[in-house]
Amino acid sequence: MSTDLMPNRFRPGEVPLPAREAALIARRDAVLGASYRLQYRKPVHFVRGEGMWLYDPDDRAYLDFYNNVPSLGHCHPEVNAAMAEQAARISANTRYLEPRLVDYAERLIDTFPAQLDRVVFTCTGSESNDLALRIARLVSGGEGVIVTSYAYHGTSAAVAAVSPNLGAAVNLSPFVRMVTLPGTDGVADAQAGAFFEAQVRAAIVDLQRRGIGVAALLFDSIFSSDGVWIDPPGFIAGAVEAVREAGGLVIADEVQPGFGRTGAHMWGFERHGIVPDLVTLGKPMGNGFPIGAVVGRHAPMERFGQTARYSNTFAGNTVGIATADAVLTILQRDRILESVMRVSQRLRHGLDAVAAEVPGIRGIRNAGLFFGVDIGLPDSLPSQRRAMALDLVNALRDDGVLISTTSANEDALKIRPPLVCQDEHADLFLARFRAALEKVASAYTPA
Amino acid sequence: MSTDLMPNRFRPGEVPLPAREAALIARRDAVLGASYRLQYRKPVHFVRGEGMWLYDPDDRAYLDFYNNVPSLGHCHPEVNAAMAEQAARISANTRYLEPRLVDYAERLIDTFPAQLDRVVFTCTGSESNDLALRIARLVSGGEGVIVTSYAYHGTSAAVAAVSPNLGAAVNLSPFVRMVTLPGTDGVADAQAGAFFEAQVRAAIVDLQRRGIGVAALLFDSIFSSDGVWIDPPGFIAGAVEAVREAGGLVIADEVQPGFGRTGAHMWGFERHGIVPDLVTLGKPMGNGFPIGAVVGRHAPMERFGQTARYSNTFAGNTVGIATADAVLTILQRDRILESVMRVSQRLRHGLDAVAAEVPGIRGIRNAGLFFGVDIGLPDSLPSQRRAMALDLVNALRDDGVLISTTSANEDALKIRPPLVCQDEHADLFLARFRAALEKVASAYTPA
Repeated sequence: MSTDLMPNRFRPGEVPLPAREAALIARRDAVLGASYRLQYRKPVHFVRGEGMWLYDPDDRAYLDFYNNVPSLGHCHPEVNAAMAEQAARISANTRYLEPRLVDYAERLIDTFPAQLDRVVFTCTGSESNDLALRIARLVSGGEGVIVTSYAYHGTSAAVAAVSPNLGAAVNLSPFVRMVTLPGTDGVADAQAGAFFEAQVRAAIVDLQRRGIGVAALLFDSIFSSDGVWIDPPGFIAGAVEAVREAGGLVIADEVQPGFGRTGAHMWGFERHGIVPDLVTLGKPMGNGFPIGAVVGRHAPMERFGQTARYSNTFAGNTVGIATADAVLTILQRDRILESVMRVSQRLRHGLDAVAAEVPGIRGIRNAGLFFGVDIGLPDSLPSQRRAMALDLVNALRDDGVLISTTSANEDALKIRPPLVCQDEHADLFLARFRAALEKVASAYTPA
Repeated sequence: MSTDLMPNRFRPGEVPLPAREAALIARRDAVLGASYRLQYRKPVHFVRGEGMWLYDPDDRAYLDFYNNVPSLGHCHPEVNAAMAEQAARISANTRYLEPRLVDYAERLIDTFPAQLDRVVFTCTGSESNDLALRIARLVSGGEGVIVTSYAYHGTSAAVAAVSPNLGAAVNLSPFVRMVTLPGTDGVADAQAGAFFEAQVRAAIVDLQRRGIGVAALLFDSIFSSDGVWIDPPGFIAGAVEAVREAGGLVIADEVQPGFGRTGAHMWGFERHGIVPDLVTLGKPMGNGFPIGAVVGRHAPMERFGQTARYSNTFAGNTVGIATADAVLTILQRDRILESVMRVSQRLRHGLDAVAAEVPGIRGIRNAGLFFGVDIGLPDSLPSQRRAMALDLVNALRDDGVLISTTSANEDALKIRPPLVCQDEHADLFLARFRAALEKVASAYTPA
């Protein structure tokens, strides 16, 4: 595992910076301090966004193949108009009756399997996962949470404590157990389900014999932080069954895969043919407006709602709701999922072609427009693979394309453009990607 | 203590409802379920807001003396214009350089004592308190948190576990200790500081002898959920010193008192002449846009930032920042604090006059535009006082004025209008309040 807290980041002094950016960074460090890490060796400075593009103060354009929050593209005029129109009318909280909240809740629930018929709104994906853990612990009576070995689920105290991705500096809960994905262990597809289920069953036994009990299996169905290990479809079904037998709840963290990222489905868990007990939403829900939700089955949601007094001041306010409503309308009306399928296949074929012709790619995995691309030359050490991935990310940044890294060793590229990515953007990305890979690969090839 | 999760709420069947509202509530219950409680016996239904007023679908106006989130008034056109203008330009995250984020962070820090020189943004007050607890626990090495007996600090798992206000159904952390406020125990002002300090010292001893250690004293400086117990100024100073001696951090939860609510100061802790280690912000910061922050001293903020990888997807995005920047500009430019002082004194005098002439008021406390008014006739039982407060809140609602209840017994009125409340609103409120109190008091007076 990489011990760097964030490999793709700015380190003072590593590369020379223009005076304008150096001055801004000095001011920034003085008030925001160490928590605020900038991406790239040479940080990017943006003042304008539009669709797939971000622009720096000199009006240089960067193709955004990284940001999954503005999934309808930067500064979507229709989304922004809906937000502004509602803000001018009323920003009501949920203690008052307001039809717009109910309308959207119904429309959102309609995109889920019928068993999932309740929603509670939040402001962030972290709040969604935090609330889902509260519900699961209350309903199950257990405390234990099972996650994958490099999972990241958010930033609240309870959620950070079940996010091994945060590294050794952030204490894990004594009640969390980690399980390995079949893909990262090289397990063949035919054995993947049995392998994963066996690990989850072992974790359950350990939690039970220590009196901790099982609250939940919490997973992101495309396992984005583990390196985008998505296949074979359905490999988590046995584990889901095991957790339910033990009285635990199944929580699908859809903050990354949800709202059509995978193209094939609105929700990532659908790929695996399961219906979770709780589903958590965030990032693209409002195309950038802070809004999230927990969608769940009737019984656990009602049990929690009747027992605990839960309120969230900003969550479900009508401005966020109107914004999210516009996002859902556009996703459906513009058939964004179909476009994601088409463009992601084009990107996949293009990346396969690059991999066949240029050295440096060890594997490519994708679910729709979320790609994990393993970097490294044959026989390169983990540290060399990580360095090469980082060089590639920075070469692309210098050529005006934004991506970053992922996986336990941080040697996989994380590529996830806004969902409005079209063929022309895919082709431009592929051309620049090929050029950058050729350059970086030659630098790592022994003369 | 009241055992009702939320006394001022709608209970199906208690009063007849118009068909339009009954139908909307049925739809709402079907998707949002039990977590979503409506205020008032007869819920209010709003479709439009402007300044101090909210309007129902029949265009009936309600004077808002309750909502402390839109502190500049509902649908403030300048705030909304700043939000819309920024949303049309760029919604950048904090991994990229963007001058607006730095500008606002500097302006915000300038409103604090010099020792508080760092800020980390969040999306909600709950996220702010959750993060502050993470920082305090990391820096102190302790786990114990000291709060007041009826404190509410938010809704995440870690924060709900130190919020006794949530009632018996929400488990408290084994690491939290509750201390009583001198005011609720009837302690005279001259002994208040010693009384409070002694309780905090006893809590510290208990936490230490159990090996839990002291992470923080966490308090809202106007003690809003305990019933607005604010006097005498400075009574918390000895407790603050005791916590620091024990290696704990002092966290001022400014979600309610902050941004000028008290009129005398921008921040509530200033009333007590102390400088906290961490300060948490939320509610009015964006006049409704989901934004919060932790402001803190250099050492703990840097220690956390360098140790843990903390990121919050939506927090610090330039749309929220531009919105909060507009709020701060208007607060300062329009001298809102001076207006709060003037109008709150007028309200206080008016309430004192009502109390002198109409039976039913047992006490009045305020810090600026946050009032706690104890309701009850001489010799009435706690349950009668609670019922009378609830009747009064509902009588005012029926007369087009919004307030609610607070305190351990829920027999105090919570009155906190937007900060743009003017003399004319205060006078209108006082007239309707007097009439409602007369009506309710006579119903509770033996014939």
